Amino acid sequence: MLLPGEVSHSDPPPPAQRKCRPMNPYESFLLTDLYQLAMMEGYVEEGVTGTAVLEFFARKLPPQPGFLMAAGLEQALDFLQDLRVTPEELNWLSASGKVSPALIDYLAEFRFTGDVHAMPEGKVLFPDEPIIRLTAPLSEAQYAETRLINLLHFQSLIAAKAARIALAAQGRLLVDFGLRRAHGAEAGLLAARASYIAGFAGTATVLAGREFGVPTFGTMAHAFVQSFDDEAQAFQAFARARPEKLVLLIDTYDTEEGARKVAALAPKLRAQGITLGGVRLDSGDLDALSRSVRRILDEAGLQEVAIFVSGGMGETKIGNLLQAGAPIDGFGVGTSLTTSSDLAALDCAYKLEEYAGIPRRKRSEGKTTWPGRKQVLRRIGADGRMAGDVLSAADDAQDGVPLIEPVMKDGKRLRPAPTLDEIRAHAAAQLAALPEGLRRLDPAAAYPVEIGARLKALAAETDRSIDHMEEG
Amino acid sequence: MLLPGEVSHSDPPPPAQRKCRPMNPYESFLLTDLYQLAMMEGYVEEGVTGTAVLEFFARKLPPQPGFLMAAGLEQALDFLQDLRVTPEELNWLSASGKVSPALIDYLAEFRFTGDVHAMPEGKVLFPDEPIIRLTAPLSEAQYAETRLINLLHFQSLIAAKAARIALAAQGRLLVDFGLRRAHGAEAGLLAARASYIAGFAGTATVLAGREFGVPTFGTMAHAFVQSFDDEAQAFQAFARARPEKLVLLIDTYDTEEGARKVAALAPKLRAQGITLGGVRLDSGDLDALSRSVRRILDEAGLQEVAIFVSGGMGETKIGNLLQAGAPIDGFGVGTSLTTSSDLAALDCAYKLEEYAGIPRRKRSEGKTTWPGRKQVLRRIGADGRMAGDVLSAADDAQDGVPLIEPVMKDGKRLRPAPTLDEIRAHAAAQLAALPEGLRRLDPAAAYPVEIGARLKALAAETDRSIDHMEEG
Repeated sequence: MLLPGEVSHSDPPPPAQRKCRPMNPYESFLLTDLYQLAMMEGYVEEGVTGTAVLEFFARKLPPQPGFLMAAGLEQALDFLQDLRVTPEELNWLSASGKVSPALIDYLAEFRFTGDVHAMPEGKVLFPDEPIIRLTAPLSEAQYAETRLINLLHFQSLIAAKAARIALAAQGRLLVDFGLRRAHGAEAGLLAARASYIAGFAGTATVLAGREFGVPTFGTMAHAFVQSFDDEAQAFQAFARARPEKLVLLIDTYDTEEGARKVAALAPKLRAQGITLGGVRLDSGDLDALSRSVRRILDEAGLQEVAIFVSGGMGETKIGNLLQAGAPIDGFGVGTSLTTSSDLAALDCAYKLEEYAGIPRRKRSEGKTTWPGRKQVLRRIGADGRMAGDVLSAADDAQDGVPLIEPVMKDGKRLRPAPTLDEIRAHAAAQLAALPEGLRRLDPAAAYPVEIGARLKALAAETDRSIDHMEEG
Repeated sequence: MLLPGEVSHSDPPPPAQRKCRPMNPYESFLLTDLYQLAMMEGYVEEGVTGTAVLEFFARKLPPQPGFLMAAGLEQALDFLQDLRVTPEELNWLSASGKVSPALIDYLAEFRFTGDVHAMPEGKVLFPDEPIIRLTAPLSEAQYAETRLINLLHFQSLIAAKAARIALAAQGRLLVDFGLRRAHGAEAGLLAARASYIAGFAGTATVLAGREFGVPTFGTMAHAFVQSFDDEAQAFQAFARARPEKLVLLIDTYDTEEGARKVAALAPKLRAQGITLGGVRLDSGDLDALSRSVRRILDEAGLQEVAIFVSGGMGETKIGNLLQAGAPIDGFGVGTSLTTSSDLAALDCAYKLEEYAGIPRRKRSEGKTTWPGRKQVLRRIGADGRMAGDVLSAADDAQDGVPLIEPVMKDGKRLRPAPTLDEIRAHAAAQLAALPEGLRRLDPAAAYPVEIGARLKALAAETDRSIDHMEEG
């Protein structure tokens, strides 16, 4: 079908190069929790300089989503590689009295010098499976916590939501319309990126085109129609101004009446060399209206004009409309996508798993963690589908494909960033390999994640040493 | 009580001055929906240059929140006043092929030249009541839609959430811990601002201190405790490094055991001139644990040591803990605050209410709007409490205090921005004046919002002219 208003991401110009961008204050070293600075002061003053291993993972999931999708690694690696404190920030911190002079000295040369292992973006994953592991001096690995979670949690949450919507839409065109109700600018931009990775065709957000090369789509708003005395006149004006891949919004007053006006207008447009790409419906009973609009268009010989709908869309509504047989070719999805409205956040944590060579474990009630460096090994069935994962100690040899890879060494990326389309292709392959129940978004579908024998033994050993410490 | 780790916002240095900040790419003109550019092209090419009036309002609310709180106006006015297209953005747009050369010419001089009326920040408001009204050439007022909603919707949503939490906490210390799971950097920062307006004492987010002057608070994380071989040793090290307003996290292994270690340590700290301010509990049965920790501390003569809790806090949990009599002095609130986890977004709209002097009205099914410029008039009862609002045509004389004020004229602010503390004081007065049912967060509490007679008449008149147009 025709893609409304698409500007292919391969068109010139390419996304802006990172190094040429103005400095973003949200990339500030100060975008952190005060306790990170308090603890860093403790580490520096007490000489706590050992190597720490921290891992970030989701704790548990509600019935939906039945799976997560890793996203945000590129932004996380940018953050780590570019980490430094500017002279202006040092001055501000110093004047604020929030930290000691010794910490100010330490921060002047502060960099991330550690190693990073991670799931590639687009990978399907499950609770307890680490998305990222940092191995670095404790002060660096601990500092990274706040922004690392802020970047990885949100994009992984949105990628999982977008993946569910993509599965429900069964190949229909999907466009992110969610910037306005996203939680701020960065949420809107990163949601455009994460949803494109997970299978959306693109976004309405122009800046996501420039920053990430995501294809952009756009139609028109009700105010355009209302600013003309007559709906048909508004359609003609818009068609003259935007003759390519034209999509008209037809529900400002009466949807079927709007469709009839489009049908009457189409021959005139054709005579001017303008081909109507589609119509958009944004309100009302979209099942019934899409059918009657399809009929009106077909009777006017406009079989090739696509029907695009928007307004409160999410995976359930899309699934129901398509299940009922509504003749809809594409969906604009806004708020439910960019806010992950049915699950605003994941229960997730970034935890110390090893310090100075000794595995560590948090035992707070209800928040116990698995100690040590971990790997996830995935078994693939004879049908090519995912059959089950094993969460294992990183040095435990188990069957299966290891999902966690080295991506940064001594603070430097090990290889250039993959392109967004490479990541998107990986995500598509992952979704294709999901077990059928998860693909159907069946809330009862369970995916087996076992705990490897060596990891269980390590946990028992760590508990014994904590008990010993508590008694000592 | 002692405020853990507080650095008063009146301390030097003041928040960074806006003009000295590096340019933020998220303030880009391109942070918009592609359809805004498509429609602008239509307006420019068709000579649609009349004055438009657009208003932003919430459509309806679920039982909770029973009210909203206006927030984000300062950022919205900054956005409008600074609106322009940089040469780099013009070049990129031009090369992208997304817009016509005529629009590029128009954009080179694009500014916001209109008038703005708005509810002051901190004002309590209800569905259908406009938070902001723009009166400007249609191309400007329409373009503003995406970022204006993005800024005002989010902060107003979070301010309403924070206000509910503040009402539930009955004066206990509240600190925003939510940056890590906020939806990106801007969400974390703006949530720190919005929650401070609504009554939080401050935030853990250091950058919110620098950007907005919000007081910052911080304690320690489990990883700090785990990185030492012994919990008591970790407490001592942290106390040496951060002797002022010391708060120790005591639930890494066993909370009561942690409290006993604190009790044993306190005399030694006192001998070193270090006064323990509080302990933090982050897991387990917080009602039972706060009582046993209180007992342990009291028996050690540490009555002045505060108990601060965190971990999955929201207005319901806080209300239940205090209702049960748990001896808790303060709460760290994270995810539920910064993601507004029970209501990820408001049903809200930015709609054309008048164009070229003629009132307009959208009549899409289920999304009908009130036409024309509106005012909200609030009646205050003899007890000083809010008694009811009237949504009226702006030129209708009605009893009550008008809530919508002029704030910008011809693209320039009418007065300097109020300080954050002035806004916060206004919000506190608003919450104090809520009817008792809304203050108690009673889901059955209803607040009367009437529609003024002249507005009803205007709507009927607008309908007749639309019907006439449809027939014509």
